Amino acid sequence: MARHMTEPIKEVMDEILAKPSTRRGVCIWLTGMSSAGKTTTAEALAELLTASGRQVTLLDGDLVRSLLSKGLGYSKEDRDANIRRIGFVAREIVRHDGAVICAAVSPYQEIRNEIRQDIGSDNFVEVFVNTPLEVCEARDRKGLYARARRGEISGLTGIDDPYEPPQHPDITLDTVTHTAAENARLILDYLRQCGFL
Amino acid sequence: MARHMTEPIKEVMDEILAKPSTRRGVCIWLTGMSSAGKTTTAEALAELLTASGRQVTLLDGDLVRSLLSKGLGYSKEDRDANIRRIGFVAREIVRHDGAVICAAVSPYQEIRNEIRQDIGSDNFVEVFVNTPLEVCEARDRKGLYARARRGEISGLTGIDDPYEPPQHPDITLDTVTHTAAENARLILDYLRQCGFL
Repeated sequence: MARHMTEPIKEVMDEILAKPSTRRGVCIWLTGMSSAGKTTTAEALAELLTASGRQVTLLDGDLVRSLLSKGLGYSKEDRDANIRRIGFVAREIVRHDGAVICAAVSPYQEIRNEIRQDIGSDNFVEVFVNTPLEVCEARDRKGLYARARRGEISGLTGIDDPYEPPQHPDITLDTVTHTAAENARLILDYLRQCGFL
Repeated sequence: MARHMTEPIKEVMDEILAKPSTRRGVCIWLTGMSSAGKTTTAEALAELLTASGRQVTLLDGDLVRSLLSKGLGYSKEDRDANIRRIGFVAREIVRHDGAVICAAVSPYQEIRNEIRQDIGSDNFVEVFVNTPLEVCEARDRKGLYARARRGEISGLTGIDDPYEPPQHPDITLDTVTHTAAENARLILDYLRQCGFL
């Protein structure tokens, strides 16, 4: 085909042909303790992605719990069921070449690995929102740590339920020295490098 | 641009440029009583869509109940919650220009309208699987009618719970005189006419 083309046309055509590859499905999975900064980072990232012309779905743990997982509690079984539901929706969006950001505590490595495998490792970006427990507790956006310390709730991740840090996260964020906007930009750069954008 | 192009290149280019419009998000919503033929039709349609090169998600009521809606019952409230979850996933897939087939009894007009509005009327195709109750009961794939007649279960649509037929379905299917394959082809033709394929 190329031999019939003038140079400017070839350029435009290459650009058009390159387009489908810019629509590669991707799941950005943010894991970390309560008040680590997952939602704030996810929202900043969603804004950047939208501004770059990319349609994006944000599956926030709390939002999801009010719709998809109403009635589920915080036992390991219920937590896993909640994560599997988020994972199912994320997988289907990725199958349609969509971009989805998931922000959920997701404290257990095993289920995170299951989701990664289910979605496909090449389309899964694990982001560890690595905020120390004392910082999370000082922020305490939802007052959960205070309630746990007062003994009003049990099974809070980091207090009396384990948080298993990712062993090989694609990105690790520091929310103490960096703002949510800076961290979102970091993720965006990574997505660009990997050819997702 | 066209004035620099030879005819064959223009043809190819027009074809490429036309491509994005072939990826228009669509939700095909099959409603009808138990054993009406929703799943069979949905599966046949999914096969046709896949064969035409279109990625497709099938959200079958029963499948969804085992994953997204485990624990929900058959009260009006629980039914509506189940339908809203299916609707949520469908909406997100459509937002990413994907194709999704939903097969669920969805007996209430009000909630079907809510989903249609939520997804966007232009991307929503309501298919009424219009099989008479006596035919559904004779098929009784899951043995539900027999159990309802024996008084073992209550709240079965068509028996002691209402089915509200769609008032303005986009397509009405006859599963008595037509096979699932024929009905799937009918839907596919409609999707083509509407520019979804």
